[in-house]
Amino acid sequence: MFMCYRSAVRQHAAELICLIGAEERLKESDLQLRFCTNETQATRKNFVAKLQRLGFDISVSEVFPPAPAAIAVLNERGLRPHLLVHDGLLPEFDAVDKTNPNCVIVGDAAENFSYQNLNEAFRVLIGLERPVLFSLGQGRYYKETDGLKLDVGVYMKALEYACDLKAEVIGKPSPTFFQSVLNDMGLKPNEVCSNE
Amino acid sequence: MFMCYRSAVRQHAAELICLIGAEERLKESDLQLRFCTNETQATRKNFVAKLQRLGFDISVSEVFPPAPAAIAVLNERGLRPHLLVHDGLLPEFDAVDKTNPNCVIVGDAAENFSYQNLNEAFRVLIGLERPVLFSLGQGRYYKETDGLKLDVGVYMKALEYACDLKAEVIGKPSPTFFQSVLNDMGLKPNEVCSNE
Repeated sequence: MFMCYRSAVRQHAAELICLIGAEERLKESDLQLRFCTNETQATRKNFVAKLQRLGFDISVSEVFPPAPAAIAVLNERGLRPHLLVHDGLLPEFDAVDKTNPNCVIVGDAAENFSYQNLNEAFRVLIGLERPVLFSLGQGRYYKETDGLKLDVGVYMKALEYACDLKAEVIGKPSPTFFQSVLNDMGLKPNEVCSNE
Repeated sequence: MFMCYRSAVRQHAAELICLIGAEERLKESDLQLRFCTNETQATRKNFVAKLQRLGFDISVSEVFPPAPAAIAVLNERGLRPHLLVHDGLLPEFDAVDKTNPNCVIVGDAAENFSYQNLNEAFRVLIGLERPVLFSLGQGRYYKETDGLKLDVGVYMKALEYACDLKAEVIGKPSPTFFQSVLNDMGLKPNEVCSNE
Protein backbone atom coordinates (compact mmCIF):
# COMPACT_ATOMS: atom_id res chain seq x y z
CA MET A 1 0.00 0.00 0.00
CA PHE A 2 1.10 3.54 -0.77
CA MET A 3 0.62 6.33 1.71
CA CYS A 4 1.03 9.60 -0.14
CA TYR A 5 1.37 12.89 1.62
CA ARG A 6 3.09 16.11 0.82
CA SER A 7 5.25 17.57 3.50
CA ALA A 8 3.21 16.15 6.36
CA VAL A 9 5.44 18.06 8.70
CA ARG A 10 3.94 21.29 7.38
CA GLN A 11 0.33 20.22 7.92
CA HIS A 12 -1.92 21.31 10.75
CA ALA A 13 -1.55 19.48 14.04
CA ALA A 14 -4.92 17.71 13.86
CA GLU A 15 -4.18 16.30 10.43
CA LEU A 16 -0.77 15.17 11.57
CA ILE A 17 -2.23 13.27 14.53
CA CYS A 18 -4.70 11.64 12.16
CA LEU A 19 -1.88 10.59 9.84
CA ILE A 20 0.10 9.13 12.70
CA GLY A 21 -2.96 7.17 13.81
CA ALA A 22 -3.54 5.86 10.28
CA GLU A 23 0.09 4.91 9.90
CA GLU A 24 0.08 2.96 13.21
CA ARG A 25 -3.01 0.97 12.22
CA LEU A 26 -1.51 0.17 8.81
CA LYS A 27 1.73 -0.94 10.46
CA GLU A 28 -0.29 -3.46 12.50
CA SER A 29 -1.65 -5.02 9.31
CA ASP A 30 0.18 -7.46 7.02
CA LEU A 31 0.33 -4.89 4.21
CA GLN A 32 3.62 -3.73 2.75
CA LEU A 33 3.75 0.00 3.29
CA ARG A 34 5.61 2.73 1.42
CA PHE A 35 5.40 6.46 1.92
CA CYS A 36 5.56 8.66 -1.21
CA THR A 37 6.28 12.33 -0.75
CA ASN A 38 7.18 15.29 -2.94
CA GLU A 39 9.32 16.72 -0.17
CA THR A 40 12.38 18.32 -1.79
CA GLN A 41 13.55 20.74 0.88
CA ALA A 42 15.55 18.15 2.85
CA THR A 43 17.49 14.95 2.27
CA ARG A 44 15.52 11.73 2.73
CA LYS A 45 17.52 11.02 5.90
CA ASN A 46 16.75 14.37 7.48
CA PHE A 47 13.13 14.29 6.38
CA VAL A 48 12.59 10.86 7.96
CA ALA A 49 14.37 11.99 11.15
CA LYS A 50 11.90 14.88 11.33
CA LEU A 51 8.94 12.51 10.89
CA GLN A 52 10.34 10.23 13.60
CA ARG A 53 10.62 13.17 16.00
CA LEU A 54 6.98 13.95 15.23
CA GLY A 55 5.95 10.45 16.29
CA PHE A 56 6.01 8.40 13.08
CA ASP A 57 7.33 4.83 13.37
CA ILE A 58 9.01 4.97 9.98
CA SER A 59 12.36 4.08 8.41
CA VAL A 60 14.37 5.67 5.60
CA SER A 61 13.86 2.67 3.30
CA GLU A 62 10.07 3.07 3.46
CA VAL A 63 10.07 6.71 2.29
CA PHE A 64 10.22 7.72 -1.38
CA PRO A 65 10.93 11.37 -2.18
CA PRO A 66 11.79 12.53 -5.71
CA ALA A 67 15.51 13.25 -5.27
CA PRO A 68 16.74 9.63 -4.95
CA ALA A 69 14.54 8.72 -7.93
CA ALA A 70 16.13 11.58 -9.89
CA ILE A 71 19.61 10.34 -9.02
CA ALA A 72 18.69 6.89 -10.36
CA VAL A 73 17.58 8.53 -13.65
CA LEU A 74 20.83 10.53 -13.86
CA ASN A 75 22.86 7.35 -13.42
CA GLU A 76 20.80 5.43 -16.00
CA ARG A 77 21.19 8.17 -18.62
CA GLY A 78 24.72 9.39 -17.81
CA LEU A 79 23.53 12.90 -16.99
CA ARG A 80 25.30 15.51 -14.85
CA PRO A 81 22.94 18.05 -13.28
CA HIS A 82 23.00 21.74 -12.64
CA LEU A 83 20.95 22.01 -9.43
CA LEU A 84 18.34 24.63 -8.62
CA VAL A 85 17.22 23.15 -5.32
CA HIS A 86 16.86 23.96 -1.63
CA ASP A 87 20.08 24.11 0.39
CA GLY A 88 18.65 21.35 2.58
CA LEU A 89 18.53 18.98 -0.40
CA LEU A 90 22.07 19.57 -1.68
CA PRO A 91 23.72 16.83 0.44
CA GLU A 92 21.54 14.24 -1.34
CA PHE A 93 23.54 15.03 -4.48
CA ASP A 94 26.99 14.99 -2.81
CA ALA A 95 28.11 11.87 -4.67
CA VAL A 96 26.68 13.02 -8.04
CA ASP A 97 29.04 14.35 -10.74
CA LYS A 98 27.94 17.93 -11.38
CA THR A 99 30.87 19.04 -13.56
CA ASN A 100 30.08 20.37 -17.05
CA PRO A 101 26.31 19.88 -16.54
CA ASN A 102 24.15 18.49 -19.33
CA CYS A 103 20.78 18.83 -17.61
CA VAL A 104 19.03 20.94 -14.99
CA ILE A 105 17.14 19.70 -11.92
CA VAL A 106 14.68 22.05 -10.29
CA GLY A 107 13.21 21.31 -6.86
CA ASP A 108 11.30 23.40 -4.34
CA ALA A 109 14.25 25.76 -3.91
CA ALA A 110 12.29 28.38 -1.91
CA GLU A 111 14.65 31.28 -1.11
CA ASN A 112 17.05 29.94 -3.75
CA PHE A 113 14.49 30.87 -6.43
CA SER A 114 16.29 34.17 -6.98
CA TYR A 115 16.46 36.12 -10.23
CA GLN A 116 20.17 35.28 -10.46
CA ASN A 117 19.69 31.55 -9.86
CA LEU A 118 16.84 31.30 -12.37
CA ASN A 119 18.92 33.11 -15.00
CA GLU A 120 21.80 30.75 -14.30
CA ALA A 121 19.66 27.61 -14.66
CA PHE A 122 18.20 29.06 -17.87
CA ARG A 123 21.66 29.78 -19.33
CA VAL A 124 22.75 26.19 -18.66
CA LEU A 125 19.63 24.86 -20.41
CA ILE A 126 19.70 27.20 -23.41
CA GLY A 127 23.39 26.43 -23.91
CA LEU A 128 22.77 22.68 -24.29
CA GLU A 129 22.37 21.06 -27.68
CA ARG A 130 19.60 18.87 -26.21
CA PRO A 131 18.25 20.67 -23.14
CA VAL A 132 16.89 18.34 -20.45
CA LEU A 133 14.94 19.74 -17.51
CA PHE A 134 13.88 17.56 -14.58
CA SER A 135 11.34 18.88 -12.11
CA LEU A 136 10.98 17.30 -8.68
CA GLY A 137 7.21 17.74 -8.68
CA GLN A 138 4.73 20.01 -10.40
CA GLY A 139 2.85 21.57 -7.49
CA ARG A 140 1.45 25.07 -7.89
CA TYR A 141 1.62 26.32 -4.29
CA TYR A 142 1.43 25.24 -0.67
CA LYS A 143 0.63 26.74 2.68
CA GLU A 144 3.11 27.44 5.42
CA THR A 145 2.51 29.10 8.77
CA ASP A 146 3.38 32.51 7.28
CA GLY A 147 1.19 32.14 4.19
CA LEU A 148 0.99 30.64 0.70
CA LYS A 149 4.23 29.92 -1.17
CA LEU A 150 4.81 29.20 -4.86
CA ASP A 151 5.83 25.60 -5.45
CA VAL A 152 8.31 23.98 -7.82
CA GLY A 153 5.81 23.54 -10.67
CA VAL A 154 5.58 27.28 -11.13
CA TYR A 155 9.32 27.60 -11.70
CA MET A 156 9.25 24.50 -13.90
CA LYS A 157 6.69 26.25 -16.14
CA ALA A 158 8.85 29.38 -16.20
CA LEU A 159 11.89 27.47 -17.47
CA GLU A 160 9.76 25.43 -19.88
CA TYR A 161 8.50 28.62 -21.51
CA ALA A 162 11.92 30.27 -21.53
CA CYS A 163 13.51 27.33 -23.37
CA ASP A 164 10.44 26.12 -25.28
CA LEU A 165 10.70 22.61 -23.86
CA LYS A 166 8.77 20.17 -21.69
CA ALA A 167 10.18 19.18 -18.31
CA GLU A 168 10.34 15.57 -17.15
CA VAL A 169 8.54 15.42 -13.81
CA ILE A 170 10.05 13.13 -11.18
CA GLY A 171 7.69 12.75 -8.25
CA LYS A 172 3.96 12.42 -7.74
CA PRO A 173 1.92 11.99 -9.93
CA SER A 174 4.51 10.76 -12.45
CA PRO A 175 3.86 7.08 -13.36
CA THR A 176 7.61 6.35 -13.50
CA PHE A 177 7.94 7.63 -9.94
CA PHE A 178 5.22 5.28 -8.68
CA GLN A 179 6.77 2.47 -10.75
CA SER A 180 10.08 2.88 -8.90
CA VAL A 181 8.18 2.32 -5.64
CA LEU A 182 6.42 -0.74 -7.08
CA ASN A 183 9.79 -2.12 -8.11
CA ASP A 184 10.98 -1.75 -4.53
CA MET A 185 7.93 -3.68 -3.29
CA GLY A 186 8.14 -6.34 -5.99
CA LEU A 187 4.49 -5.75 -6.85
CA LYS A 188 2.38 -4.85 -9.89
CA PRO A 189 0.05 -1.80 -10.08
CA ASN A 190 -3.07 -4.00 -9.64
CA GLU A 191 -1.65 -5.44 -6.43
CA VAL A 192 -1.45 -2.17 -4.51
CA CYS A 193 -3.71 0.59 -3.36
CA SER A 194 -2.98 4.21 -2.58
CA ASN A 195 -4.67 6.98 -0.63
CA GLU A 196 -4.05 9.36 -3.51
CA MET B 1 4.41 53.83 -40.05
CA PHE B 2 5.40 51.82 -37.01
CA MET B 3 9.01 51.31 -36.02
CA CYS B 4 9.15 48.46 -33.56
CA TYR B 5 12.21 47.67 -31.54
CA ARG B 6 12.77 46.17 -28.19
CA SER B 7 15.10 48.00 -25.88
CA ALA B 8 17.19 49.45 -28.70
CA VAL B 9 19.49 50.88 -26.07
CA ARG B 10 20.57 47.37 -25.20
CA GLN B 11 21.43 46.39 -28.77
CA HIS B 12 24.90 46.19 -30.26
CA ALA B 13 26.45 49.46 -31.44
CA ALA B 14 26.31 48.63 -35.17
CA GLU B 15 22.59 47.86 -35.00
CA LEU B 16 21.94 51.06 -33.10
CA ILE B 17 23.71 53.19 -35.73
CA CYS B 18 21.63 51.45 -38.39
CA LEU B 19 18.41 52.23 -36.47
CA ILE B 20 19.38 55.87 -36.09
CA GLY B 21 20.08 56.07 -39.82
CA ALA B 22 16.73 54.49 -40.66
CA GLU B 23 14.89 56.76 -38.26
CA GLU B 24 16.52 59.88 -39.81
CA ARG B 25 15.53 58.86 -43.33
CA LEU B 26 11.94 58.17 -42.21
CA LYS B 27 11.76 61.54 -40.47
CA GLU B 28 12.63 63.18 -43.80
CA SER B 29 9.60 61.51 -45.46
CA ASP B 30 5.98 62.63 -45.12
CA LEU B 31 5.07 59.49 -43.17
CA GLN B 32 3.61 59.68 -39.69
CA LEU B 33 6.01 57.81 -37.45
CA ARG B 34 5.45 56.02 -34.14
CA PHE B 35 7.92 53.94 -32.18
CA CYS B 36 6.55 50.86 -30.39
CA THR B 37 8.68 49.27 -27.70
CA ASN B 38 8.27 46.66 -24.99
CA GLU B 39 10.64 48.58 -22.73
CA THR B 40 9.36 48.27 -19.16
CA GLN B 41 12.46 49.05 -17.12
CA ALA B 42 12.08 52.82 -17.29
CA THR B 43 9.37 55.45 -17.58
CA ARG B 44 8.56 56.62 -21.10
CA LYS B 45 10.14 60.00 -20.30
CA ASN B 46 13.43 58.49 -19.10
CA PHE B 47 13.50 55.97 -21.93
CA VAL B 48 13.09 58.68 -24.56
CA ALA B 49 15.74 60.83 -22.84
CA LYS B 50 18.13 57.88 -23.14
CA LEU B 51 17.32 57.46 -26.83
CA GLN B 52 17.87 61.19 -27.39
CA ARG B 53 21.29 60.98 -25.70
CA LEU B 54 22.12 58.12 -28.06
CA GLY B 55 21.36 60.32 -31.07
CA PHE B 56 17.69 59.70 -31.86
CA ASP B 57 15.63 62.73 -32.93
CA ILE B 58 12.55 61.53 -31.13
CA SER B 59 9.88 62.93 -28.78
CA VAL B 60 7.92 61.38 -25.90
CA SER B 61 4.63 61.55 -27.82
CA GLU B 62 6.04 59.38 -30.62
CA VAL B 63 7.05 56.50 -28.34
CA PHE B 64 4.61 53.80 -27.21
CA PRO B 65 5.73 51.49 -24.40
CA PRO B 66 3.30 49.14 -22.60
CA ALA B 67 2.99 50.97 -19.26
CA PRO B 68 0.97 54.00 -20.46
CA ALA B 69 -1.27 51.60 -22.41
CA ALA B 70 -1.74 49.57 -19.22
CA ILE B 71 -2.70 52.69 -17.26
CA ALA B 72 -5.35 53.48 -19.89
CA VAL B 73 -6.78 49.97 -19.43
CA LEU B 74 -6.79 50.37 -15.62
CA ASN B 75 -8.72 53.62 -15.95
CA GLU B 76 -11.21 52.14 -18.42
CA ARG B 77 -11.95 49.16 -16.19
CA GLY B 78 -11.65 50.77 -12.76
CA LEU B 79 -8.78 48.51 -11.69
CA ARG B 80 -6.17 49.14 -8.99
CA PRO B 81 -2.91 47.28 -9.58
CA HIS B 82 -0.43 45.48 -7.41
CA LEU B 83 2.84 46.12 -9.27
CA LEU B 84 5.62 43.62 -9.89
CA VAL B 85 7.78 45.86 -12.05
CA HIS B 86 11.25 47.39 -12.27
CA ASP B 87 12.07 50.21 -9.85
CA GLY B 88 12.72 52.41 -12.89
CA LEU B 89 9.12 52.00 -14.05
CA LEU B 90 7.42 52.78 -10.72
CA PRO B 91 7.19 56.58 -11.27
CA GLU B 92 4.99 55.90 -14.33
CA PHE B 93 2.34 54.65 -11.88
CA ASP B 94 2.69 57.50 -9.36
CA ALA B 95 -0.77 58.88 -10.09
CA VAL B 96 -2.44 55.44 -10.16
CA ASP B 97 -4.55 54.29 -7.19
CA LYS B 98 -2.84 51.16 -5.86
CA THR B 99 -4.79 50.77 -2.62
CA ASN B 100 -6.64 47.49 -2.04
CA PRO B 101 -5.46 46.06 -5.41
CA ASN B 102 -7.83 44.08 -7.62
CA CYS B 103 -5.34 43.10 -10.33
CA VAL B 104 -1.61 42.44 -10.79
CA ILE B 105 0.70 44.00 -13.37
CA VAL B 106 3.96 42.23 -14.15
CA GLY B 107 6.71 43.92 -16.16
CA ASP B 108 10.36 43.13 -16.73
CA ALA B 109 11.14 43.53 -13.03
CA ALA B 110 14.68 42.09 -13.29
CA GLU B 111 16.20 42.08 -9.78
CA ASN B 112 12.71 42.62 -8.35
CA PHE B 113 11.78 39.10 -9.52
CA SER B 114 12.62 37.77 -6.08
CA TYR B 115 11.02 34.75 -4.40
CA GLN B 116 9.36 37.11 -1.91
CA ASN B 117 7.96 39.46 -4.57
CA LEU B 118 6.62 36.60 -6.69
CA ASN B 119 4.93 35.06 -3.66
CA GLU B 120 3.42 38.44 -2.84
CA ALA B 121 2.05 38.97 -6.37
CA PHE B 122 0.67 35.42 -6.31
CA ARG B 123 -1.07 35.97 -2.94
CA VAL B 124 -2.77 39.10 -4.28
CA LEU B 125 -4.01 37.21 -7.36
CA ILE B 126 -5.15 34.06 -5.55
CA GLY B 127 -6.99 36.20 -3.01
CA LEU B 128 -9.14 37.89 -5.67
CA GLU B 129 -12.60 36.65 -6.54
CA ARG B 130 -11.83 37.36 -10.21
CA PRO B 131 -8.04 37.38 -10.59
CA VAL B 132 -6.76 39.64 -13.38
CA LEU B 133 -3.12 39.50 -14.45
CA PHE B 134 -1.67 41.98 -16.94
CA SER B 135 1.73 41.29 -18.46
CA LEU B 136 3.72 44.09 -20.09
CA GLY B 137 5.02 41.79 -22.84
CA GLN B 138 5.54 38.08 -23.27
CA GLY B 139 9.23 37.85 -24.20
CA ARG B 140 11.18 34.76 -23.19
CA TYR B 141 14.66 36.23 -22.74
CA TYR B 142 17.02 38.93 -23.96
CA LYS B 143 20.71 39.56 -24.11
CA GLU B 144 22.59 42.11 -22.03
CA THR B 145 26.31 42.76 -21.91
CA ASP B 146 26.70 40.30 -19.02
CA GLY B 147 24.66 37.52 -20.63
CA LEU B 148 21.14 36.25 -21.27
CA LYS B 149 18.36 37.29 -18.89
CA LEU B 150 14.87 35.88 -18.43
CA ASP B 151 12.17 38.24 -19.67
CA VAL B 152 8.72 39.13 -18.37
CA GLY B 153 6.92 36.37 -20.31
CA VAL B 154 8.62 33.73 -18.21
CA TYR B 155 7.27 35.18 -14.97
CA MET B 156 3.89 35.73 -16.61
CA LYS B 157 3.77 31.98 -17.35
CA ALA B 158 4.80 31.22 -13.76
CA LEU B 159 1.90 33.25 -12.32
CA GLU B 160 -0.51 31.90 -14.95
CA TYR B 161 0.25 28.34 -13.87
CA ALA B 162 0.16 29.16 -10.16
CA CYS B 163 -3.32 30.70 -10.41
CA ASP B 164 -4.62 28.64 -13.35
CA LEU B 165 -5.47 31.74 -15.40
CA LYS B 166 -4.50 33.46 -18.64
CA ALA B 167 -2.73 36.81 -18.49
CA GLU B 168 -3.79 39.76 -20.63
CA VAL B 169 -0.70 40.87 -22.55
CA ILE B 170 -0.25 44.61 -22.98
CA GLY B 171 2.54 45.32 -25.45
CA LYS B 172 3.80 43.83 -28.68
CA PRO B 173 2.38 41.70 -30.32
CA SER B 174 -1.01 42.32 -28.68
CA PRO B 175 -3.52 43.68 -31.25
CA THR B 176 -5.06 46.02 -28.65
CA PHE B 177 -1.64 47.54 -28.06
CA PHE B 178 -1.15 48.26 -31.76
CA GLN B 179 -4.73 49.56 -31.93
CA SER B 180 -3.93 52.19 -29.27
CA VAL B 181 -1.11 53.44 -31.51
CA LEU B 182 -3.42 53.49 -34.54
CA ASN B 183 -5.92 55.53 -32.53
CA ASP B 184 -3.18 58.04 -31.78
CA MET B 185 -2.37 58.32 -35.49
CA GLY B 186 -6.02 58.45 -36.57
CA LEU B 187 -5.38 55.65 -39.06
CA LYS B 188 -6.73 52.17 -39.86
CA PRO B 189 -4.64 48.98 -39.92
CA ASN B 190 -4.59 48.90 -43.74
CA GLU B 191 -3.20 52.44 -43.84
CA VAL B 192 0.04 51.70 -41.98
CA CYS B 193 3.09 49.50 -42.31
CA SER B 194 5.42 48.16 -39.67
CA ASN B 195 8.93 46.75 -39.61
CA GLU B 196 7.73 43.89 -37.36
